[in-house]
Amino acid sequence: MPRDLIAALDIGGTKIAGALVDGSGKLVVRARRATRAQEAGATVMRQVTAVLEELAATPHWSRAAAVGIGSAGPVDASVGTVSPVNIPGWRDFPLVAGVRETTGALPLTLVGDGPAMTAAEHWQGAARGRKGALCMVVSTGVGGGLVLGGRLHPGPTGNAGHIGHISVELDGDPCPCGGRGCVERIASGPNIARRALDGGWRPGPDGDTSARAVAASARAGDPVARASFARAAQALAAGIAATAALVEIEVAVIGGGVAGAGDVLFAPLRRALRDYATLSFVQGLEVVPAQMGTDAGVVGAAAAAAQEARLEGFGPAAGTHPTGD
Amino acid sequence: MPRDLIAALDIGGTKIAGALVDGSGKLVVRARRATRAQEAGATVMRQVTAVLEELAATPHWSRAAAVGIGSAGPVDASVGTVSPVNIPGWRDFPLVAGVRETTGALPLTLVGDGPAMTAAEHWQGAARGRKGALCMVVSTGVGGGLVLGGRLHPGPTGNAGHIGHISVELDGDPCPCGGRGCVERIASGPNIARRALDGGWRPGPDGDTSARAVAASARAGDPVARASFARAAQALAAGIAATAALVEIEVAVIGGGVAGAGDVLFAPLRRALRDYATLSFVQGLEVVPAQMGTDAGVVGAAAAAAQEARLEGFGPAAGTHPTGD
Repeated sequence: MPRDLIAALDIGGTKIAGALVDGSGKLVVRARRATRAQEAGATVMRQVTAVLEELAATPHWSRAAAVGIGSAGPVDASVGTVSPVNIPGWRDFPLVAGVRETTGALPLTLVGDGPAMTAAEHWQGAARGRKGALCMVVSTGVGGGLVLGGRLHPGPTGNAGHIGHISVELDGDPCPCGGRGCVERIASGPNIARRALDGGWRPGPDGDTSARAVAASARAGDPVARASFARAAQALAAGIAATAALVEIEVAVIGGGVAGAGDVLFAPLRRALRDYATLSFVQGLEVVPAQMGTDAGVVGAAAAAAQEARLEGFGPAAGTHPTGD
Repeated sequence: MPRDLIAALDIGGTKIAGALVDGSGKLVVRARRATRAQEAGATVMRQVTAVLEELAATPHWSRAAAVGIGSAGPVDASVGTVSPVNIPGWRDFPLVAGVRETTGALPLTLVGDGPAMTAAEHWQGAARGRKGALCMVVSTGVGGGLVLGGRLHPGPTGNAGHIGHISVELDGDPCPCGGRGCVERIASGPNIARRALDGGWRPGPDGDTSARAVAASARAGDPVARASFARAAQALAAGIAATAALVEIEVAVIGGGVAGAGDVLFAPLRRALRDYATLSFVQGLEVVPAQMGTDAGVVGAAAAAAQEARLEGFGPAAGTHPTGD
C-alpha cells in the first residue's frame, strides 16, 4: 500500500474538520465534529479523537504518511501545545500528545490556523507559484501566515505571520491581546461595525449590525460606512507594507468574511498601499482575494505536514529547496 | 593555493571599505577609499575599483573564493543595481557589473548594509547561535536585517529587514520615504534631537544639538530629553514586536550611534516591549546591544557571500541547513 495520503485536522472554535488528503489536494475521506469549545478540555479532545477515529476506520488510513494539524492559536509547535483564545478549556493543552494516541508513530506537524491557510493558498490558491507571500484572514479576528523563499514559514512555534497583532498606532486603542493599536483592533469585522456605529451609522430594518451590513451600506454610498472600511483598509495596508519591508513579499492574499466585502475593502486598500508601500522593492506588491474555500484549513495542514516531513508530491512546498532568498 | 578567503566590500556614503576575509572573520588585507558620494556615479565607481585593485594586487587575491558586497540601500540584488539614498550619482547603478570587471568569474553576492551588518552579528556578534534575530542600526537612519531559520534572510532583492520604514503611526508625520509614521521618522538620531528641541530642550554651551547631546541631558535627568528617547524607544519596541509577531525572533540586536546612549535608550525600550510584545510566543524576546565594530560591514558581506555560494567555514550561515522553521 503506498503511503500517499496525509491525515489533516483543522481545529477551530466551532468545528473540528478532518480529512485524508491526496497529492492533488483532494479530500479522499472527510470527518467532522462540533468543537464544543465551551466544555472541558478533555471533552474537546474527545471530539478530536472521534474525528481521527472516523478517518482511521476507513480502508484509506493505512495510506497515511504523516499527520498535519492546523489549530486556532496561539499554538506552540516547539512543545506540542495549544492555547486557542476561543477554546477556554485548552490552555497549554498537549494536543500533539493527544493526537498521537490515535496516530501513533506517523510524523506529525502542528501549525497555527494562519500558517495552515497560507499553505493551502500557496499550494492551490492565490499564492500559487509565489516565492514570497502574506496570506491573511480578515474576519472576527485578523490572522495570517507567510511564504518565504518559496516555502511556508511557520516559525519555530508555528505562529509566524501574526499580522493581526502588530501595532500600527503607537497610541491607539488597547487591544484584548494586551497591546495597543493592533491591526485587528482596527480592521476586524466587529471593529469595522463598532466604528461605523460610533460614527452614527444605523442598521436597516433587520437590525443587522455586522460588518457585512456595514459593507452593504458602504456599497450603497453611505459615507460613515465607507469611512469605517477605509480606516480598516488603511490599517491593513500599513501592516501589509510593514511585512513587505521586513521580509519582501510579492503578494498579499486576503480571505475571510470581511474580504467578502469586495471592492468596498479592496479599492481603499490598494489606494492606501500606495501611501505606505513606498520603498522601491515593495512598490510592485499585489493584493488579491483568497481563492480557497472552507477546506483551506485541512488542505493547508496537509501541505504544512508534507513540507516538514519532506514528502514529495504535495504541492509547491514539498520539493522546493530554499536558496539565499 | 586554497580558495579560503572572501573578498568583501562595504559601501557607504562616506567611505568604501574592502577586505579579504578569512574563515575566522579576520581581515587578512584591508583597503579603503573615500566614497566621493557627491560626485558623478562613474567617479564613485572608480573609488570602488581602486579598493578592489588594491586587494587584487596582493598575493592573497588568488585565494579569494567569492565576492560579497554590502551597500547602502536600497539595492536590487535581483538585477545587480543599487540606488543608495546618500549617493545621488547612483540610481539603478549597475554596481555588480562594475565590480565584475575586476573580480571576473568569482561568485558575487550583493546585499543591503542592514543584512550585511546582520550577517556579521550572526556570525561573530550578539546574534551568534540564534535561529531567529532582528539586527538593527539606529543612527542617522534606522536599518536592519533578519536571521530566520538560522540563516541570513536578505530577501530576493537584498533589502529584507527594512524596519526603519515600517509605519507604527498610521496618522504620523510624513517620512522622506513617502510613507507616514515610520520607525525611522520617530527613532533616528536627528528625530530624537528634533523632538527634544521642539519640546524645549536646549543644548549646552558647546551648542551640540545631536542625539548624543540629548542622551547626555537625559542621563543627567532632563525630562524633555528623557521623553524624546522614550518616544524613540516606544517606536522601536512596536517595530521589534511587529517583527517578532510576523516571523518569530529570539533576539533584537541594536547597534549604531543612538544605541551608544546605553540605558537611556535600552531601559525604556525594554519597558515598552512589555507593552507591545504581548503574544505568548514573543514574550521571551531579548534586546541586546550590537557587538561588532566598524568592520561589521565587510565581515557581514563576506558571511552573506559565503551563505549564497554555500562555502563552508565562514560562520554559522554556511553549513546550516534550514528546517521547517
